[in-house]
Amino acid sequence: MTREERRNGRRKGLVIVYTGHGKGKTTAALGTMIRAWGHGMRVCMIQFLKSETGKWGEVRAARKMEGIEWISTGDGWTWRSKDMDETTARALRGWEIAREKIASGDYDLIILDEFTYALAYGWLDLQEVINWLKANKPDDLHLIITGRDAPTELTTYADLVTNMSKIKHPFDEGIMGQPGIEF
Amino acid sequence: MTREERRNGRRKGLVIVYTGHGKGKTTAALGTMIRAWGHGMRVCMIQFLKSETGKWGEVRAARKMEGIEWISTGDGWTWRSKDMDETTARALRGWEIAREKIASGDYDLIILDEFTYALAYGWLDLQEVINWLKANKPDDLHLIITGRDAPTELTTYADLVTNMSKIKHPFDEGIMGQPGIEF
Repeated sequence: MTREERRNGRRKGLVIVYTGHGKGKTTAALGTMIRAWGHGMRVCMIQFLKSETGKWGEVRAARKMEGIEWISTGDGWTWRSKDMDETTARALRGWEIAREKIASGDYDLIILDEFTYALAYGWLDLQEVINWLKANKPDDLHLIITGRDAPTELTTYADLVTNMSKIKHPFDEGIMGQPGIEF
Repeated sequence: MTREERRNGRRKGLVIVYTGHGKGKTTAALGTMIRAWGHGMRVCMIQFLKSETGKWGEVRAARKMEGIEWISTGDGWTWRSKDMDETTARALRGWEIAREKIASGDYDLIILDEFTYALAYGWLDLQEVINWLKANKPDDLHLIITGRDAPTELTTYADLVTNMSKIKHPFDEGIMGQPGIEF
């Protein structure tokens, strides 16, 4: 499909939110990534909280998958962060990168992973973010946003919202996170 | 990691259930698949309901990813099936294949996609399936089961259960399934 065809409205770019306290949010975004990649689509993953390290299976996988761009803007999980101002600055920087990628029209699918935290913690202005997306997101671009506690304004804007709730988690039983499953 | 190391219990094989009526169950299984694949693990996906056709982005992707085995046992979605006996027969055949793959010890992660239907619709005997898994699943094998309406006996057996509930879905707005997102 050429850019012209996409622009002619053959495709409706969906805004998808995976939220809730259960496991499966980033994981489902990764699953959509592989599906889109299978169709030859151009994919960009922007991770807002996780640092780029070699231990993540998904990062290792993406390196093996031509056509997937992977950007990590976070400085690790918030509750490990010693400097909250630095965390805020990185979220702002992440949003700057995201805006550039979204507005470029160069992608079929963009994932803003753990982005809800930047909105829920007030590092970014929620209404400004949504207004910007409404004005600038290409109509044919699929956008996935993950993270707990997605604000109502975001889910109202989205086309597809799934809430992942925890029924049972092995951490509760004292079982450690397993490579290939948790990361 | 050698088979000996795995057998020595360095790893705890998790039983994971992604259930509920929201979008993201198979998608999260695919995300875990890519994560495991990134770690160089040996993955087998067994799809119980979807026919193998070229249109699925995930099937196309798997063909490009060395080390992922992909088996489709279904004859399409149930409500399209003209011959329910045939559907039941294929579920039984799928479970036969699954048992062989699980017992082989040749995999790190096996996904039984849409398997809950075979249990919920009574094509397979639920208690027999769980007893077989308890007796035969290697301790270090990660097993993911997806599908709506996971029976309580299954979630009791599982280590990790996430319920995906639909908050909003574009079908409700008359928006068609999008390539790269829905399939």
